[in-house]
Amino acid sequence: MKVEGKPTRTIWLNGDGWSVGIIDQTRLPFHFERISLKTLEDAAKAIASMQVRGAPLIGAAAAYGVALAMRADASDPALEEACRILLATRPTAVNLRWALEDMAAHLKPLAPDAREAAAYARAAAIADDDAAQNEAIGRHGLPLIEAAHRQKGEGAVNVLTHCNAGWLATVDWGTALAPIYMAHDAGIPVHVWVDETRPRNQGAGLTAWELGQHGVPYTVIVDNAGGHLMQQGEVDLCIVGTDRTTGGGDVCNKIGTYLKALAAFDNGVPFYVALPGTTIDWRMEKGVGEIPIEERDGAEVATITGSDPKGELATVRLLPEGGKVKNVAFDVTPARLVTGLITERGIAKPSRAGLEALYPEHRAPKEKAG
Amino acid sequence: MKVEGKPTRTIWLNGDGWSVGIIDQTRLPFHFERISLKTLEDAAKAIASMQVRGAPLIGAAAAYGVALAMRADASDPALEEACRILLATRPTAVNLRWALEDMAAHLKPLAPDAREAAAYARAAAIADDDAAQNEAIGRHGLPLIEAAHRQKGEGAVNVLTHCNAGWLATVDWGTALAPIYMAHDAGIPVHVWVDETRPRNQGAGLTAWELGQHGVPYTVIVDNAGGHLMQQGEVDLCIVGTDRTTGGGDVCNKIGTYLKALAAFDNGVPFYVALPGTTIDWRMEKGVGEIPIEERDGAEVATITGSDPKGELATVRLLPEGGKVKNVAFDVTPARLVTGLITERGIAKPSRAGLEALYPEHRAPKEKAG
Repeated sequence: MKVEGKPTRTIWLNGDGWSVGIIDQTRLPFHFERISLKTLEDAAKAIASMQVRGAPLIGAAAAYGVALAMRADASDPALEEACRILLATRPTAVNLRWALEDMAAHLKPLAPDAREAAAYARAAAIADDDAAQNEAIGRHGLPLIEAAHRQKGEGAVNVLTHCNAGWLATVDWGTALAPIYMAHDAGIPVHVWVDETRPRNQGAGLTAWELGQHGVPYTVIVDNAGGHLMQQGEVDLCIVGTDRTTGGGDVCNKIGTYLKALAAFDNGVPFYVALPGTTIDWRMEKGVGEIPIEERDGAEVATITGSDPKGELATVRLLPEGGKVKNVAFDVTPARLVTGLITERGIAKPSRAGLEALYPEHRAPKEKAG
Repeated sequence: MKVEGKPTRTIWLNGDGWSVGIIDQTRLPFHFERISLKTLEDAAKAIASMQVRGAPLIGAAAAYGVALAMRADASDPALEEACRILLATRPTAVNLRWALEDMAAHLKPLAPDAREAAAYARAAAIADDDAAQNEAIGRHGLPLIEAAHRQKGEGAVNVLTHCNAGWLATVDWGTALAPIYMAHDAGIPVHVWVDETRPRNQGAGLTAWELGQHGVPYTVIVDNAGGHLMQQGEVDLCIVGTDRTTGGGDVCNKIGTYLKALAAFDNGVPFYVALPGTTIDWRMEKGVGEIPIEERDGAEVATITGSDPKGELATVRLLPEGGKVKNVAFDVTPARLVTGLITERGIAKPSRAGLEALYPEHRAPKEKAG
């Protein structure tokens, strides 16, 4: 998507043909700074410090981290060490493990002197695949916005989203925002209600920034406001992302998603979830009680970081030292509240039958008749 | 309620017998500072700058402001001027107008030299009446917590609240928090989930502080988290306040209340609203679309104030200059999502019939049979 008018990805190979460019996302939305990763350590630091974040982008960054490592030392021990170091950066990210296992599987069989070129090629393929997959999600979601536009007749289609499921979390396009970018690029007037998404404010900090850079009209609201806007008819549809969707269609996503789904249901507003098929957990049926929910450091609630009057990042406390806090990072939206799941293969009903229709390879084996 | 172990009200007559003490609520929760109001201008400034806030407390502060004015000049023009100045401090507060009209009605018939003493007496009565009314709300709400405790058998009763409907918004006791203080004082183990309540963070800033000072266990959560906690069975009941309740039982309260009511309904958690009968708008039936909803300055969303590392209040920007924001202050919870309305006269069903049963003087006149 565009930054300052120029098409940009979240990760790229620099003009020198070997160093890797990223956006330092810890500085957004106040400072847009590109930085270069030149070593395995640079890549590991970028992931651990959340200069790159979002599961798909973490996977691509780890793949490039292996390529940088191979450039320095393409021996077997170096390959193993690189994977070990990168895996330890964010231990819970599924894409991180997947990307590293993929890289290792490709590189191990090769002679060391063939590994550097192969690593760069494979990292580029991982990045391109992610962008293509998200573009496909966008293509399948676009007709929802087109239909809302036709039905509405005039004015922009108002889409509400929560957290950041945009291109900053991926290599390009994003998941929930991909249909929105595609609609905007196709000339359909679209406006996005951006939940600020406490406690980490990814909506106000990232989603608003990326929409604004690409030229998509948006308005930031507090997380409390979406229900009122739906009551007032100011939301035409909701599209959010997901970290994990069960085979039964329950959706685990950033804390607060469930509340917006309840409000959408109560007001007859369609509620869609955009996801790559890789995030479906086929072994699981129900989300509530089954999906483990991460509880994070209370400091994320007790303090907040913004820009001080000098334009520098500054952190202030929102409640006194000793104030008790609980910080739950995700919640589960039951399938009954979800209108549809927008995947790279099309839109699925939020049920096992609906998902299996798009992903027949995951169909549970039936017992054969004697 | 208690501050630093001592019973405290939000407004009081100082030991000198004429100056008026308040807590500077703009400095909470980081600094507990009492200040003295000695003139009409002090009182007007305290209301306008939100050193005192919450409709009942504003009413009491305005009444004492008139008393301070009468002390300086008890003439008719001075009385009129005092009411005019105080009314202009927060033009939308219903209690402010009511308190000033009450004071004027009491003082105008009196000879000027009788007005000072009468004004202090009437202001004290307004303050005492508010405390007594809230205590009655607490008495009627207490059995709900007692019943939850019996049903639960062990562990604390977990009550979720939104915004600040505590004693800081009133003269004493508060509305939503009155039953909680009463339960705590009666030895019933009670724990409060405190929604931080963006954008002005009255939950994290005021509710958590006052609960903590009185010794009631609490945990601050982001506004996004309540739905998840209810799904997990971690909320036994919700109690919130209200700015206006329609005769039909629809509840207008701080933005985000509706989302919590939806989650409570979806999870079978009782959802109660505590209110003095004076905030019922008998002329109105439905809240959505009928109650005008205040839209406030976007800066409340775009910036936030907290305590910097030196302990000073500091404001940081959460999104860049030019970022578009909408700031809606209230929403409406339809009566169908409300379990009951806790008033100073008892608990009413959220319907006209339910409210009229407690307030028969507001029963609509029936056409008489010919």
